[in-house]
Amino acid sequence: MSKPPSLDDYRVPYFSEKKAEKFSLDALDPAAKPFSAGTKDGDRDRLSEIGNKLDVQQERLHAQRHQRVLLVLQGMDTSGKDGTIRGVFHEVDPLGLRIVPFRAPTPAEAARDFLWRVHLQVPGAGELTIFNRSHYEDVLVPRVMGHIDPAECERRYRQIRDFERLLAESGTSIIKCMLHISKDEQRSRIQARIDDPSKHWKFDVSDLEARKLWDAYQAAYRDALAATSTEYAPWYVIPANSKSHRNVMVGELLLRLMESLKLEYPPAKAELKGLKIE
Amino acid sequence: MSKPPSLDDYRVPYFSEKKAEKFSLDALDPAAKPFSAGTKDGDRDRLSEIGNKLDVQQERLHAQRHQRVLLVLQGMDTSGKDGTIRGVFHEVDPLGLRIVPFRAPTPAEAARDFLWRVHLQVPGAGELTIFNRSHYEDVLVPRVMGHIDPAECERRYRQIRDFERLLAESGTSIIKCMLHISKDEQRSRIQARIDDPSKHWKFDVSDLEARKLWDAYQAAYRDALAATSTEYAPWYVIPANSKSHRNVMVGELLLRLMESLKLEYPPAKAELKGLKIE
Repeated sequence: MSKPPSLDDYRVPYFSEKKAEKFSLDALDPAAKPFSAGTKDGDRDRLSEIGNKLDVQQERLHAQRHQRVLLVLQGMDTSGKDGTIRGVFHEVDPLGLRIVPFRAPTPAEAARDFLWRVHLQVPGAGELTIFNRSHYEDVLVPRVMGHIDPAECERRYRQIRDFERLLAESGTSIIKCMLHISKDEQRSRIQARIDDPSKHWKFDVSDLEARKLWDAYQAAYRDALAATSTEYAPWYVIPANSKSHRNVMVGELLLRLMESLKLEYPPAKAELKGLKIE
Repeated sequence: MSKPPSLDDYRVPYFSEKKAEKFSLDALDPAAKPFSAGTKDGDRDRLSEIGNKLDVQQERLHAQRHQRVLLVLQGMDTSGKDGTIRGVFHEVDPLGLRIVPFRAPTPAEAARDFLWRVHLQVPGAGELTIFNRSHYEDVLVPRVMGHIDPAECERRYRQIRDFERLLAESGTSIIKCMLHISKDEQRSRIQARIDDPSKHWKFDVSDLEARKLWDAYQAAYRDALAATSTEYAPWYVIPANSKSHRNVMVGELLLRLMESLKLEYPPAKAELKGLKIE
């Protein structure tokens, strides 16, 4: 008998300056469903349960107004970042969520260091914030496009580690998920968008350029994940060919993180005890 | 037979420089349920239907990336602003919503005109944004507290009209809802929070100061609504003693607004027609 899968099996080994632990994206099957209940209905029920529990955790986080939680979502086009947000957070009070999409930098953003616009958006006390893409775009795209050299890329990895450590030391719990799909799965998802004219708005012919550079992007992801998975901001690789598995796994990871914070409602206020309102 | 209620019966008459149409908050019963299905279950079903339709509208708004929608929620403490957001937007994709809470101004905010921080948060193209409290706090609180004189208050009403017209002329559809509860309903809601220690975090003894000034706040609301309800940014008074009625009515108003925009998915892209992905 093999032992049951553990979420930690999908955590990218922590970066170490001394030796790089071997890490390969290829070794992780995007079609695997280790945390699936086995059926779509089962996954839906589990996801609903996770959503309700996340809702409870989020309310406590908000009530306490002390800790902060940041979920970073990354992945190739069509890997399901939007779908994860929709699927996992369907049951969570929209009041308690802040979703920050990062697109191509504006001139004002490009005129500053690449972490400037990210720092502006970090969660405040009591906030659960989701980055839909993130500062990782700036070690993926320019590397693949050859706009930064390897030394600059290494420098950015370090800057990211330092930045995320600052956030962690200031009370932010961070979890980072890479939605891992196969090249063939991406083909069929892009094709589906093309075949449905009402989905054309989600898609641009120029998006196909990144697909042509699939292998280079996979290598860039592997290196970025290996260089920035840390105890205070770990990366997890989410097998994401199956949408329901992807949602359950991201939900489980976030729920585990939030439950580990032991969030409680603030203590009752003595001055309110027995007070009668006129 | 009386005619069935119309949402427009609850719209505050548009401001006119020439003559002020008589408007009284007292004439509107906070306990009324004109748009309720009659039972809680009926309201829940209706709300779910509205939520699903809003989700469709919001996706089109997002796909089109052209128009913008702003919902402003105002009301006394415990009037249900948070609950409305939770209740109405439960079915709406969290990706498509941005909720902006306005609290007491920070020093940086207070150092600028009162619309500065509001302008920073207006919806962008394709966004549905909800203001949880708003610039209206700045014509309610300082007026009641005597920090601004009547001339300054009138000036701010005009500045608000001008500001909202700018937004409207730039493609933003605005709807403003005042959640109208009775003083007695507020008493019982505050009492419930006091009697449940796990709810104490929602409440501060200083909140009772505003309750003592109930009549002054009602008068301030009446004047502010009368002075700033315009064709491009109308105010609606929502009878809100019943939470399910409140949610249905706010949902209906927003849905009607969004449906009036005739939002459609952008046209299919000719260059994608028949394209086969490798």
